Amino acid sequence: MSLTQSFIAVAPDSDFPLQNLPYGVFQPQGAAARVGVAIGEQVLDLAALEAAGVLQAGSEPVFNQASLNAFIALGRPVWQQVRARLQQLLSADCAELRDNADLRAKAFYLQADVAMLLPIEVPGYTDFYSSKEHAYNVGCMFRDPKNALMQNWSELPIGYNGRASSVVVSGTDLVRPSGQIKLPNEERPVFSACRKLDFELETGFIVGKATALGEPIAIEEAENHIFGMVLLNDWSARDIQQWEYVPLGPFNSKTFGTSISPWVVTLEALEPFRCASPVQEPQPLPYLRENTPNNYDIKLQVAIAADGSETVISNTNFKYMYWSMMQQLTHHTIAGCNVRVGDLMGSGTISGPDKDSRGSLLELTWNTTEPLTLVNGEQRGFLQDGDTLIMRGHCEQDGLRIGFGEVRGTVLPAKTFAWQQD
Amino acid sequence: MSLTQSFIAVAPDSDFPLQNLPYGVFQPQGAAARVGVAIGEQVLDLAALEAAGVLQAGSEPVFNQASLNAFIALGRPVWQQVRARLQQLLSADCAELRDNADLRAKAFYLQADVAMLLPIEVPGYTDFYSSKEHAYNVGCMFRDPKNALMQNWSELPIGYNGRASSVVVSGTDLVRPSGQIKLPNEERPVFSACRKLDFELETGFIVGKATALGEPIAIEEAENHIFGMVLLNDWSARDIQQWEYVPLGPFNSKTFGTSISPWVVTLEALEPFRCASPVQEPQPLPYLRENTPNNYDIKLQVAIAADGSETVISNTNFKYMYWSMMQQLTHHTIAGCNVRVGDLMGSGTISGPDKDSRGSLLELTWNTTEPLTLVNGEQRGFLQDGDTLIMRGHCEQDGLRIGFGEVRGTVLPAKTFAWQQD
Repeated sequence: MSLTQSFIAVAPDSDFPLQNLPYGVFQPQGAAARVGVAIGEQVLDLAALEAAGVLQAGSEPVFNQASLNAFIALGRPVWQQVRARLQQLLSADCAELRDNADLRAKAFYLQADVAMLLPIEVPGYTDFYSSKEHAYNVGCMFRDPKNALMQNWSELPIGYNGRASSVVVSGTDLVRPSGQIKLPNEERPVFSACRKLDFELETGFIVGKATALGEPIAIEEAENHIFGMVLLNDWSARDIQQWEYVPLGPFNSKTFGTSISPWVVTLEALEPFRCASPVQEPQPLPYLRENTPNNYDIKLQVAIAADGSETVISNTNFKYMYWSMMQQLTHHTIAGCNVRVGDLMGSGTISGPDKDSRGSLLELTWNTTEPLTLVNGEQRGFLQDGDTLIMRGHCEQDGLRIGFGEVRGTVLPAKTFAWQQD
Repeated sequence: MSLTQSFIAVAPDSDFPLQNLPYGVFQPQGAAARVGVAIGEQVLDLAALEAAGVLQAGSEPVFNQASLNAFIALGRPVWQQVRARLQQLLSADCAELRDNADLRAKAFYLQADVAMLLPIEVPGYTDFYSSKEHAYNVGCMFRDPKNALMQNWSELPIGYNGRASSVVVSGTDLVRPSGQIKLPNEERPVFSACRKLDFELETGFIVGKATALGEPIAIEEAENHIFGMVLLNDWSARDIQQWEYVPLGPFNSKTFGTSISPWVVTLEALEPFRCASPVQEPQPLPYLRENTPNNYDIKLQVAIAADGSETVISNTNFKYMYWSMMQQLTHHTIAGCNVRVGDLMGSGTISGPDKDSRGSLLELTWNTTEPLTLVNGEQRGFLQDGDTLIMRGHCEQDGLRIGFGEVRGTVLPAKTFAWQQD
């Protein structure tokens, strides 16, 4: 397969060739935030193209803004048209932008020189629980290997409402949360900094088309409501979670922060990597039945950086997911819940079948009973202050690499409170 | 006690005397939405006062908008100053508005002539579970009277993230939700219209002051972050809930709609009705300990209207709540979660100690085993299509009545789906 090249240099191992063009929001030094696409090591400023009359998405400008929402709201035909136009403008054999030195000077930035901001204004955040391996592992640890999966898990994509306000972009440091934890030998909970701080390797998809209250999305239509995907770290305080989550689900153990990657990779860019989901047994009820393969082959990796050295701790793949994004979205709306443009829907922790393809420290260390050894010789059960957690993802096949870049965050020490004794 | 009167007539049983002045967003016929306060049977148009230069909240206009958020964001000192100014302008002995016929003609509408809209743009919705009687009743039904309350319930205000997109204003009809339910004698779930559609009598408070990620609100500060309260109906599909809610909490059983009253009653207006909470045993951990009475004596009533006749089915009081709004808000942020102006925080179902003071049909009918009889002779286990559910609330003491008006919604029949057989 011979791929169209850009006049912008793209290294063979770059996540961002001409075939990707993920969207993000960036801020050059001393200037306002605007929308761009990644190409190689550069960002193409879509607001600059729009202002120059070279790119038009709708009747009003949509790129000179601090979120992608206005652009996304224009709908799939416009996403496709803008993508085609950008691929044309950036291709090596198109002179329009390539030979316009003035516009090139205005429209390209090195990614290293700009700040990446949260790409989406997130009106709602939902987190699913759709990896069978993850649900099984957790069920084994906290219940019983014989009844590790609840019956409802196999019938519907279990999900819960997350907290949209604390969704942050990669690079945001996270303060270790504090709260109530219940220690095994204590009668009452204590107030403490979290002692079991974990990550959850997830992806998230961005809703691109709103619905009205009471109007479910049919499974065949669901794809048209999805704009693209990001990497997502669902930071989790396991000790706070275990004490608080019955009967209404996780709350403070999750709401202290959720990190996403700055680049939104479109479903169009991921299309060559579409693949079948695992066989679903029992067959889902009719409203969840799919006629097309709705999964994607996306390699995912997690690393911990500590003391300047990085240790890869997990390699897994999005294709292991049991419930597809389309099934998640359809289920989300089946009782009538409306969705909005920019809604973020997390996949749930992505664990694969192998020990080193698990998507959380809880699973990787089997709740600290099998600690990991980092390249610097240190051991980890859960995350320590100063640790940087990094997630990366990309698709690769026949010389085409479509990547997500990364989502990273560093753990800062917990706050100290006046009444705290530990 | 002799209360200051307004030059606008206010009936003795009105919820909206000069001492209340709740804020809402209304839309006169053929005009844009704007902010108003209720007085007697009228609405005072604050955008009209602002435009006339008679009322100023900040350096920019804030009342000529479709939500209260911009006004609320100005903070407590401004809320107090605007409240004082409005009480002055509306008082019987102040000529400024009373004798300005032109401005009065522009600034007053009959409530019956305008549409009330959702008063708040709700960036986040959280629902708590803070009535001991409710938690106990539910625990008795679904677990065991001996272990009805989980241990964590008495240690922290249990809450979960709700769905902000489906918060609607009173008067919005609700389509009966459909989804997966598990019937007792079936091996697998079936797809069905909800057969156990319920209400939950709640109040909600509106966050008035934002916080940054990682910065908890101290309990003594919590009150300054609360703008006011509304009535809230947390519509619930009990059969969908029972099948889906383990282990991550309620989802589709709640996200199909949450109704709130159009008028936001400020904490200032409620101040004369402040009262002590029930004794908390065990004493909460220090971060949740209050030094002031933080509860309010608010009478609450629920009625079902069917075939044009109305039956009161519950009379209860907000003062029964075990966890205060300030404890809820402090707990919400203790692990670092940020809040935003306009966030809605539901109290959880408010049940009192008596059988007829329960806040849901689940409890009132003890899961249909003790059906209610309506004044028209019909029985109800759960809600039927066409039923209108009405909640009302007010405080009353020494001739002063501060009311919330009502929140109402009518149940529409479920959608029919192509594959549905029942």
